[in-house]
Amino acid sequence: MNNLVERLLQGDRRALARMVTLIENEMPQAHDYLAELHLHAGDAHIIGITGSPGAGKSTLVTRMVRELRQQDYKVGIVAVDPTSPFSGGAILGDRIRMMEFSSDPNVFIRSMASRGHLGGLATSTRDVVRAMDAAGYNPILIETVGTGQAEVEIMRTAQTVVVTVAPGMGDDIQAIKAGILEIADIFVVSKADKPGADQTAAELTMLLNLDSNRRQAAWRIPVLKTSSLKEQGIPELITAIHKHFAILKESGALDERMQRQTRSEIQNLVIQAVVTALQRELAADEWQNILEEVARRERDPYSVANDLRTRLGLLNKD
Amino acid sequence: MNNLVERLLQGDRRALARMVTLIENEMPQAHDYLAELHLHAGDAHIIGITGSPGAGKSTLVTRMVRELRQQDYKVGIVAVDPTSPFSGGAILGDRIRMMEFSSDPNVFIRSMASRGHLGGLATSTRDVVRAMDAAGYNPILIETVGTGQAEVEIMRTAQTVVVTVAPGMGDDIQAIKAGILEIADIFVVSKADKPGADQTAAELTMLLNLDSNRRQAAWRIPVLKTSSLKEQGIPELITAIHKHFAILKESGALDERMQRQTRSEIQNLVIQAVVTALQRELAADEWQNILEEVARRERDPYSVANDLRTRLGLLNKD
Repeated sequence: MNNLVERLLQGDRRALARMVTLIENEMPQAHDYLAELHLHAGDAHIIGITGSPGAGKSTLVTRMVRELRQQDYKVGIVAVDPTSPFSGGAILGDRIRMMEFSSDPNVFIRSMASRGHLGGLATSTRDVVRAMDAAGYNPILIETVGTGQAEVEIMRTAQTVVVTVAPGMGDDIQAIKAGILEIADIFVVSKADKPGADQTAAELTMLLNLDSNRRQAAWRIPVLKTSSLKEQGIPELITAIHKHFAILKESGALDERMQRQTRSEIQNLVIQAVVTALQRELAADEWQNILEEVARRERDPYSVANDLRTRLGLLNKD
Repeated sequence: MNNLVERLLQGDRRALARMVTLIENEMPQAHDYLAELHLHAGDAHIIGITGSPGAGKSTLVTRMVRELRQQDYKVGIVAVDPTSPFSGGAILGDRIRMMEFSSDPNVFIRSMASRGHLGGLATSTRDVVRAMDAAGYNPILIETVGTGQAEVEIMRTAQTVVVTVAPGMGDDIQAIKAGILEIADIFVVSKADKPGADQTAAELTMLLNLDSNRRQAAWRIPVLKTSSLKEQGIPELITAIHKHFAILKESGALDERMQRQTRSEIQNLVIQAVVTALQRELAADEWQNILEEVARRERDPYSVANDLRTRLGLLNKD
């Protein structure tokens, strides 16, 4: 077995950090290492935390990590949220708040740049989670901004998804309706000390009751309230997260979820390979002329795409 | 020439509606028709309007359409925002507000469902815009929620991108920093009658001034203020949009933008074809067993992705 892989499996933080860098830089050997790590991973409970900017996500995640550390968990955090203090996008106060974990060997934080092609972010997030999992971190928290296809795709890699909503964010509930509702396992109304928190919680509960599929499911999505001012709600949230995971396992829903995720991961891996090959091919000069012809309306993009597919040996059996 | 294509090119609304349905249902003949339409399109100015839920985007778009109609433009609207009144996600008041255009033959509205695979939404949005363009609609407005890779991808299909921010949405500015700033051509602070509008505008201006690349560019990104209460700012916004387009053309930046878009469209078309083939292949029973092996950690996803690639004849020349 490769030395880096071996050290990582023994929980060596530096080996883990090195692996994450290999993943982020899309180094060719990363997939060989990750193939090995996959066979040794699978213990971690992967928890997604999402919500719009302003929903109080940063504070919530910080408090969750604090509570999980008190319960002696070894916590991994992947921040794919550009506004998260973990990924360095936030204001000074948030950064200071996060420093409490910087010297804790049982907390491993990594932020992901949201650059790159469609689907690439989900792939690299999954790979980083896999490495943390293999290194013995459990649970692993993934934090994203809760809108957009890429973010929903990332949330699908989690086993338990927590959606945060701030009081009075009516528009947010509109957005939740559209995409996030389907992936939420637990709702958190943050800033519960503020006026409107009860109403927001009631609206969410109503929304959930309208959805008859969910009413019949083994897991009834709870709507919890947290307040950092009153130091409320975090132990209850952690308990709910554990309970959700237990029910997922018992009901067989976890296996189903894992298979759906595997399918989506394998699809993504193939697509990433195609995207890389495409970009390499399109960088050639001859394509420049063809692109200009399309832009000048002398050629159409559909036939050019077909030519490109043939050239690359894509789906030639069709 | 195909009869549907011919009627569409003459501006027949029913032919356009039919074409849009073909695009949305991913009918195989749609691309043949669109190849023809592409050669006849290219006149429309494509304007993207984006912003978080609650940023006042719906009201802004409604007022823009009203102003453009007064200036006698034939306006196309593509709403890919799930919270937009155009796509039916919004509250009753918004819907009523939009009804004023329902009997206007010079306004064509179509909402896009944000379902489907990654990149698929950008492809179908581009196709619908192409059909509207060929039918003589100009300008064409594309409305999206301003977060997420898919939405940024869609905004890249526009020639002028307007980003809406409501007063006091500090978190929003954080998010803007991260992704939207790069694609904005014009900023609008909506609800300018509310307290904090001037401060938000000042913050945005400061943010723009920090960016030295932009300071040197031919187009200096303006920060405009609009208020529906005071009926302010819309004519100025329309003027700024026209001015931006004129400068894009003069400076040669438009050609550059169009070529970048063409490249990205062709890439997307190839990827869509691959995704379709992948999903068809993965539906077969034998893959079910393999996926289960991966989920049970008996196999790794990377080697399975390679096998799948070989099976489909993807990149076999590598």
